[in-house]
Amino acid sequence: MSRTLHLNAFLMGVGHHEAAWRHPRTDPRRIADVTHFQELARIAERGTLDSVFFADGLAVGPAVRHNIQAVFEPVTLLAALATATEHIGLIATASTTYNEPFNLARKFASLDHLSGGRAGWNIVTSAQAREARNFNLDDHPAHAERYRRAAEFVDVAIKLWDSWEDDALVLDTAAGVFADTDRVHEIAHQGERFRVHGPLNTPRPPQGRPLLVQAGSSADGIAFAARYAEAVFTAQQTLADGQAFYAELRRATAAAGRDPDGVKVLPGIAPVIGGTESEARALADELEALIVPEHALAQLSGMTGLDLTGLPLDGPLPDLPDVSAVQSHQSRYQLVVDLARREKLTIRQLIGRLGGGRGHRVVAGTPEQIADQIELWFTQGAADGFNVMPPLLPHGLEAFVDHVVPLLRRRGLFRHEYTGRTLREHYGLPRPASTYAGRELVTA
Amino acid sequence: MSRTLHLNAFLMGVGHHEAAWRHPRTDPRRIADVTHFQELARIAERGTLDSVFFADGLAVGPAVRHNIQAVFEPVTLLAALATATEHIGLIATASTTYNEPFNLARKFASLDHLSGGRAGWNIVTSAQAREARNFNLDDHPAHAERYRRAAEFVDVAIKLWDSWEDDALVLDTAAGVFADTDRVHEIAHQGERFRVHGPLNTPRPPQGRPLLVQAGSSADGIAFAARYAEAVFTAQQTLADGQAFYAELRRATAAAGRDPDGVKVLPGIAPVIGGTESEARALADELEALIVPEHALAQLSGMTGLDLTGLPLDGPLPDLPDVSAVQSHQSRYQLVVDLARREKLTIRQLIGRLGGGRGHRVVAGTPEQIADQIELWFTQGAADGFNVMPPLLPHGLEAFVDHVVPLLRRRGLFRHEYTGRTLREHYGLPRPASTYAGRELVTA
Repeated sequence: MSRTLHLNAFLMGVGHHEAAWRHPRTDPRRIADVTHFQELARIAERGTLDSVFFADGLAVGPAVRHNIQAVFEPVTLLAALATATEHIGLIATASTTYNEPFNLARKFASLDHLSGGRAGWNIVTSAQAREARNFNLDDHPAHAERYRRAAEFVDVAIKLWDSWEDDALVLDTAAGVFADTDRVHEIAHQGERFRVHGPLNTPRPPQGRPLLVQAGSSADGIAFAARYAEAVFTAQQTLADGQAFYAELRRATAAAGRDPDGVKVLPGIAPVIGGTESEARALADELEALIVPEHALAQLSGMTGLDLTGLPLDGPLPDLPDVSAVQSHQSRYQLVVDLARREKLTIRQLIGRLGGGRGHRVVAGTPEQIADQIELWFTQGAADGFNVMPPLLPHGLEAFVDHVVPLLRRRGLFRHEYTGRTLREHYGLPRPASTYAGRELVTA
Repeated sequence: MSRTLHLNAFLMGVGHHEAAWRHPRTDPRRIADVTHFQELARIAERGTLDSVFFADGLAVGPAVRHNIQAVFEPVTLLAALATATEHIGLIATASTTYNEPFNLARKFASLDHLSGGRAGWNIVTSAQAREARNFNLDDHPAHAERYRRAAEFVDVAIKLWDSWEDDALVLDTAAGVFADTDRVHEIAHQGERFRVHGPLNTPRPPQGRPLLVQAGSSADGIAFAARYAEAVFTAQQTLADGQAFYAELRRATAAAGRDPDGVKVLPGIAPVIGGTESEARALADELEALIVPEHALAQLSGMTGLDLTGLPLDGPLPDLPDVSAVQSHQSRYQLVVDLARREKLTIRQLIGRLGGGRGHRVVAGTPEQIADQIELWFTQGAADGFNVMPPLLPHGLEAFVDHVVPLLRRRGLFRHEYTGRTLREHYGLPRPASTYAGRELVTA
């Protein structure tokens, strides 16, 4: 196969559906059990998926009353999964808004060393006021400022990963030379937001740099992805929207002077899988019936910035402000507004549509129908692969790996076994050289 | 046994001796191999040791030319060890100077959840200018200010760990109640250095709070330990010094209103073990011969703040400034000055004495002689246990576990098997109740 599909398993508690933890097929106590996540990673590895991924946030609010809450911090969790798996890539979300570049660059370098080159970083900015209040602020910085900080943050991180050249670790026991300090570079970064002298306190990670992933699809997000991202997670509801985003991101990437094939686009898909279409539909209905409406309405109010809690569930959405007035999750906001308008959804219907994947596309059907959708988007210029979001875990991941993956393999779209060793190799992406290679030492 | 010894394995690369990586009994490539550390943790667990521990720093300097450098960040490394072990405690150093309390509280909560209650935090302040330069500063904050920040940092972390009461996670699938938000508390911390609203975004960790460990033995360090620490690592060269420190720390702890038995004191010991005394002496000599003198002298210059690099190795130390003029590692500075004066050491002899444990006590001898020293300090009011620093790894840890531990067991000083499940239980320390238990909800 000349072009291969890429599949990421987005893992979240006992499933992506907001009511997954209430469904009899899950055991919600397992959210605090590392063996649950080790099993999930091994299932994904059995399916030769490219990677597993954990999202993250830096606060909880009242929503924790009705909805599941992650227990583990993603990088520590992935470190525990690294030693329980051999091949699969390990991607964690971490915020550029409330970390220091030195600490985060080091954490991901450590994960890359621990896993033999399987670390990926989903670069995010933190957009909730309640997160800001955990970090000495009253509210989060504005959208554009968050992205400017993110860009300088990633610039610093890249310099730090590059600060040890690949061959700097000499280990010459006879001469007593541990590292060749001519190949360990101070980065002397002096920017608007950060001053970081370097070098990083760890040799260059196996992949050179962890895989850089990004998930914001706003204008700022696309500009950021075009400059830095090697894989992009995105929420797209229709093939046309997916095609438009795919084309736009590739255009922006080329305009930023990069090869568009160096960025893999993975829309989210929440596959509700049944042996028959009606079995799948029944499972989707079971899950929808378990949604707590007050909770879902409060979430939707938070997402839209409007208090919808007094409105009748079976009425329409009120008029919503233009996206430019929104300071967080802009692209997701636009998607929700478009979805409600396009399909003329009542508030109750909208809640049902969002419950399966928080705005990501939900597809209920047989394994063949799911595979058809994946093939369609992959071959029609809307996707290089998918961010797979099983509604129930482990059940939905097992169903995907055991019933959808074999179809994708038979169709020549997906690998039968791992051919690479690192996460970059799974995604067909090159190992970057250190920008300092061959340069003179900058002395202290 | 009414009072039991506590033993912590301090793990560092391929051994604590600064020339360990050059010795034929080690393989320095293993510093980047997680299975090396998994093996070490399993050896320590075979010896029913209380815990393993990793130190940390946030910069490298020119010393990396001749001396081994850690590859892994301690918390990610311990997460990978958590799933390879069942009983042993997992203690990581992390800095209060260059982290945010929310991020660090969460990381240790995550490690505690991952390991089923085996996490410990060695609380440090960062004292090197080159660390400051990786975090937007020109130099590190002064000694007293670092300790004030550390105290408020730990206050915030404790509030965050306590913010979920133990029974806040309800998981009532029928009612759709995930967490009882009456038992999830905002902490609303408004201090001089931090404003943190909370709650933490994870349920209360299995131990309630990770074990709090501290290692500074200056006046500020002792005051801090008296207030917060549950275990203290310390460097003491003589029994008399060890007794004085032990008594002083217990006095300070009582004066701070705490039970002195709630703080376990563990002096460092670097045991150079041989089948005979002359075998042990020969190993110590081999290691000393592998020291790179320019490197050791540069390190000693850094430690004393004086440029000693031009001085003859076989001459005496020059006069050194009073400890009050020193802004970092005050207690270690005093120890080095006292050691050199007491034993009238030349610079070369001092370098040899420091090479084995950076100021910690080195004891070369047979397993019986090592056990005798441990018993002496333990029974004579100088120690509750030891921070064991093997000169070579895995060799020195295996020798300790296989030859010294059985003697300590036979003498009734040390456990034959684990009787507890958590790190706190190993150290005989209580599980703290949440300070919020039973309080009214502070609403948003």
